[in-house]
Amino acid sequence: MKLIKKVNILIVGLGLIGGSYAKGLKKLGFEVNAITKEQSSIDYALKNGIIDNGTTEISSELIGKADLVIFALYPHIFIDWIGENQQYFKSGAILTDVTGVKGCIVNEIQGMLRKDVEFISAHPMAGKEVSGVENSDDSIFKQANYIVVPTKKNSEEAIELCKNLGEILGFKQVAVLSVEEHDRMIAFLSQLTHCIAVSLMCCNNTEGLEKYTGDSFRDLTRIANINDEMWSELFLNNKEELLDEMERFRASFDELYDKIKEDDREGIREMMRTSTSRRKLFDKI
Amino acid sequence: MKLIKKVNILIVGLGLIGGSYAKGLKKLGFEVNAITKEQSSIDYALKNGIIDNGTTEISSELIGKADLVIFALYPHIFIDWIGENQQYFKSGAILTDVTGVKGCIVNEIQGMLRKDVEFISAHPMAGKEVSGVENSDDSIFKQANYIVVPTKKNSEEAIELCKNLGEILGFKQVAVLSVEEHDRMIAFLSQLTHCIAVSLMCCNNTEGLEKYTGDSFRDLTRIANINDEMWSELFLNNKEELLDEMERFRASFDELYDKIKEDDREGIREMMRTSTSRRKLFDKI
Repeated sequence: MKLIKKVNILIVGLGLIGGSYAKGLKKLGFEVNAITKEQSSIDYALKNGIIDNGTTEISSELIGKADLVIFALYPHIFIDWIGENQQYFKSGAILTDVTGVKGCIVNEIQGMLRKDVEFISAHPMAGKEVSGVENSDDSIFKQANYIVVPTKKNSEEAIELCKNLGEILGFKQVAVLSVEEHDRMIAFLSQLTHCIAVSLMCCNNTEGLEKYTGDSFRDLTRIANINDEMWSELFLNNKEELLDEMERFRASFDELYDKIKEDDREGIREMMRTSTSRRKLFDKI
Repeated sequence: MKLIKKVNILIVGLGLIGGSYAKGLKKLGFEVNAITKEQSSIDYALKNGIIDNGTTEISSELIGKADLVIFALYPHIFIDWIGENQQYFKSGAILTDVTGVKGCIVNEIQGMLRKDVEFISAHPMAGKEVSGVENSDDSIFKQANYIVVPTKKNSEEAIELCKNLGEILGFKQVAVLSVEEHDRMIAFLSQLTHCIAVSLMCCNNTEGLEKYTGDSFRDLTRIANINDEMWSELFLNNKEELLDEMERFRASFDELYDKIKEDDREGIREMMRTSTSRRKLFDKI
């Protein structure tokens, strides 16, 4: 299968990310249908031309005609959905997803899936601090990375299709990682940073601090505005990797604390120089 | 004294912040002179019209004609400078500064100062991740807070003059805090966040992480690019307050760690909801 316009696309879960996929794919000329929980999401998406057809029911018709099905659901709902509805897929259909952790779903879904359809996992590393199809926006992909996460069960054809999906949606970079590499990277770059921001907001409730806040505090805590239902599930689904990264960060933080306590100015400066030189690698070009 | 154009201004220390003050004050029509360490800084500032006169010497002439002297030096250099050169001040001169911590300097300088001049401390909470007069830019004040930090030794007139200086430089907000309030606030909002960013950069040296980095990690670690000479001095000059804030953060981080380890999803969600509601206070209007 190639991503040409006659490919019929179904999005399951029409929230911020599902809606942003729909917007981008509709603009490219695909027929895009959707199944989601809330009628209000369908109404909004139809009214704004984000989808062609949509329903809150399990429509065997919409599922059965889809060549490509994109799942934008919470991990446990995704697994349940496949268990309950996989009989409706068209033979040869390709499934993909947008889930933020992989170890907890990829093997389980590939293990339970019918042999005549294929699931190739992907993680679009894009987001906003708001949710819902009403806030969907395909321009969030422009500065973002798209990670394809194949296993040995995946065909080259499906991997290529999935990479191509990231490319046509306009992601800045399309990369391939294994499930283990992906979940380790996410634990550090995304989950640990959210843990830090949440902890920082929880540790001080002095009134009026916002009056004196500069941009550095604002930047550091932007992600402290967090969807607790989604992120608590993602944290627990990647628990071992995340706890490891939290321990590494804590050891580094404790080292700095000790150096300050002991007036070890040269030791503090050494850590700051390490920090500065590593951070330069992350500057945008 | 009122800040009218005949007020003669001397800036001691022509780096990023001293240079940004000079730029803003020159645009407003003041005569602005400078004393700084490097001849190259003076040359650059003269060539670019940032100052009227400048020298790397202790010029009794430039010091003696200044009505307002603005110190943009590291804390220990500032104290030494006053000890060595205060005999040159014009009687009635007002001194102010830009130092990021106050407990370590304000009382000491006010205690050693001649009785016919007055030091009123201030902290412009503005900056960049680069240094030097070559990077100076008075537009960094627009989104920033300016804190006047008076003691009982200060006159109402000097406090008003200092507030007025923040206003004419275009700061978004001018506020007044005591030395203790200022240093506690800075320990949390600025120093702790820099400690976190440095610790985060030091805790993981996996190669290639920058390839997968999204905006949230970039935002959180922007300040990990840090001037080690200046910040190590500021940390140690505010050590007790900073260690307190580090302990509070550490307790909050440990609490989240434990909840994740114990699969306490409701406890995690509760912290996330606290974080989200507190963070909303910090949104820019």
